[in-house]
Amino acid sequence: MKYIDGGVCAPKGFKAAGVHCGIRSKDINKKDLALIVSDEMCAAAAVYTQNKVKGAPIAVTREHLRDGKAKAIVCNSGNANTCAPNGVEIAEKTCELTAKHIGADPADIIVCSTGVIGEELLMEPFEKGMPPLVKALSYEGGTMTAEAIMTTDTVSKECAVEFELDGKICRIGAAAKGSGMINPNMATMLSFITTDAAISAGMLQKALSEDIKDSYNQISVDGDTSTNDTVAIMANGMAGNREIAAEGTAFETFCRALNMVTEVLAKKLAADGEGATKLIECQVKGAPDKQTARILSKSVISSDLLKSAMFGEDANWGRVLCALGYAQADFSADDISVEMGSAKGIVKVCEHSALYPHSEEEAAEILSEKEIQIYVDLNQGKESAAAWGCDLTYDYVKINGDYRS
Amino acid sequence: MKYIDGGVCAPKGFKAAGVHCGIRSKDINKKDLALIVSDEMCAAAAVYTQNKVKGAPIAVTREHLRDGKAKAIVCNSGNANTCAPNGVEIAEKTCELTAKHIGADPADIIVCSTGVIGEELLMEPFEKGMPPLVKALSYEGGTMTAEAIMTTDTVSKECAVEFELDGKICRIGAAAKGSGMINPNMATMLSFITTDAAISAGMLQKALSEDIKDSYNQISVDGDTSTNDTVAIMANGMAGNREIAAEGTAFETFCRALNMVTEVLAKKLAADGEGATKLIECQVKGAPDKQTARILSKSVISSDLLKSAMFGEDANWGRVLCALGYAQADFSADDISVEMGSAKGIVKVCEHSALYPHSEEEAAEILSEKEIQIYVDLNQGKESAAAWGCDLTYDYVKINGDYRS
Repeated sequence: MKYIDGGVCAPKGFKAAGVHCGIRSKDINKKDLALIVSDEMCAAAAVYTQNKVKGAPIAVTREHLRDGKAKAIVCNSGNANTCAPNGVEIAEKTCELTAKHIGADPADIIVCSTGVIGEELLMEPFEKGMPPLVKALSYEGGTMTAEAIMTTDTVSKECAVEFELDGKICRIGAAAKGSGMINPNMATMLSFITTDAAISAGMLQKALSEDIKDSYNQISVDGDTSTNDTVAIMANGMAGNREIAAEGTAFETFCRALNMVTEVLAKKLAADGEGATKLIECQVKGAPDKQTARILSKSVISSDLLKSAMFGEDANWGRVLCALGYAQADFSADDISVEMGSAKGIVKVCEHSALYPHSEEEAAEILSEKEIQIYVDLNQGKESAAAWGCDLTYDYVKINGDYRS
Repeated sequence: MKYIDGGVCAPKGFKAAGVHCGIRSKDINKKDLALIVSDEMCAAAAVYTQNKVKGAPIAVTREHLRDGKAKAIVCNSGNANTCAPNGVEIAEKTCELTAKHIGADPADIIVCSTGVIGEELLMEPFEKGMPPLVKALSYEGGTMTAEAIMTTDTVSKECAVEFELDGKICRIGAAAKGSGMINPNMATMLSFITTDAAISAGMLQKALSEDIKDSYNQISVDGDTSTNDTVAIMANGMAGNREIAAEGTAFETFCRALNMVTEVLAKKLAADGEGATKLIECQVKGAPDKQTARILSKSVISSDLLKSAMFGEDANWGRVLCALGYAQADFSADDISVEMGSAKGIVKVCEHSALYPHSEEEAAEILSEKEIQIYVDLNQGKESAAAWGCDLTYDYVKINGDYRS
């Protein structure tokens, strides 16, 4: 397996594009409409936000994916189409418009929106933007699409990987956005994944649902789960492998490849968190079970106290223990070790749940880097997991409090 | 029922004091040792942090309260005695020392610590400080004690109330600290409550355990549950009422009085949250059950996004809906109304889970006050609850990230 270029267009038979259509009326240089189209019909699956307040596009996409098939993804930024008038109708019309222009059935379109909530999303920009969008579709359009779904993300985020199934070269590509904020509302995590591997819709859903437990669900910028989060995956089978229709070696290979892509994007999302100056990774090992390791690592990177300490480049291990201790998980807190690391080295700061003598200067030097690792050993089992977040900075408060000024 | 002065010394027969004994070696003007002593033996109860990493004093206090009796509370600030060498031994010695000086049994002493974790708490300052502390004990010492338990709290916090049982005047008094931070570690919420009402230890525990669900457990500054949180209550019976030994009118009266005190202190803690410029109250009504109302109101005041918006004085109702939606509770999000208010008025911003047309200028004017109310109506039941938090500000990040500079 190896990383390759191309994002969502790395797999065979996927075209993509992004244009400015006018949903963001104030900034004509910012793309606000993205489209990904497969040459062949795809097996498709998705996972959605757990928020009870859901964007209207989620209801429509869920209905369209009932048959496990899709041909394209259309996504606008600048308006979340959430708690807004005629939301479902607008999302359905967007699918009809897209389908008409690419020659597909509206029921085979996945639709997503991200941006302001509570404001009506109008059809006019879609109608104006669809012809140039479809015209711009290209087998090299991955980056265009990744850019068009950005809100306050500071960089576009894509990733692709190549691997082999039955002697056939397969690829998985993806774009993601999020942990940015859109004036004046909320962050949305979106990720669109494409693959030319042949895999049934059922196994695709299974792979995706498992994968997010160790990738997108293990990141946090501010603990606020958006109303529009969606991860969608389409598999067009054009790599020519035997369709993966059950568990086994091929499915495991596919899942490993998928995780190679999603983990990279999850880290990119965390590193681009609002106001962030540092990516913080917490690895928990020695856990009694996998889920406990996941919960504990995520609790550490979610702690405002720990995040503030990382911004201050202070090896405040007490806050790590505190965040482990209040996590909703069943474990013993009696024999915890903590190390902190970066490209500058690793320092042990806690052993047997107590201070491990260390140089504060050395620790501060290690924490001066842009990527920080916090290694936790619970010393009570064999399972491990990781989670990714960012530091809490003045700019987070500024972006989310002062955005009008 | 009415509010009165005196804090923990408002009830009959409670003396209190606070001195500087040297645990905070750097600031000789900051009191760091507090003592509350009852003239008579008390029924006593306590609730503790749910954090798995617990301060050593909690283990000792829990053991001492096994018989439901206590005579005094001793508490130091400046060192949490958590993840520190010989923690339990030090906490026990502190009880022995206190008991010797006030003429009591060590097993009748409640001991608490708040401050730095991971550093050894030495006995020497206690030995030096106990004689002047005991000498300073006074029936007017409530404020001294409230000051001695402060860490980075900017104001001391106390409250007392007077009520009648069987024609006898009874009082409940309390001191609290927290939502402040101690260099270099974590926030601790402590509250000590005294009463001269006669009530059995069992009913006292029941009253306290119920009460905190609507008071201290409904506040959040940063979502980080400390290792040392403790709320302890002592009832010496000196008011002369018939002992409350079962549920009934007297117990209900006692619980109402207790809540009058704890709700005031809970609000004071939230308002004095690190870096806070505003107290934010969220009232949820129309809920299908009480627990749902509690969870939802707390989710709103805990959202970093909403907290940042309040700092920016922006009526960002989408963030309120978002925080309701991701709360772990079972309710319908289809017909939610939201109003925001302050001393300057009330403005409706959301109805039927969608935008309710309003003036943004009027809303901003209302949010310019120091105490903000967010009124949520779920329109699906008769239960209600409230929670209290504060805004998220540059200073929160500064206090927790930059404290070394």
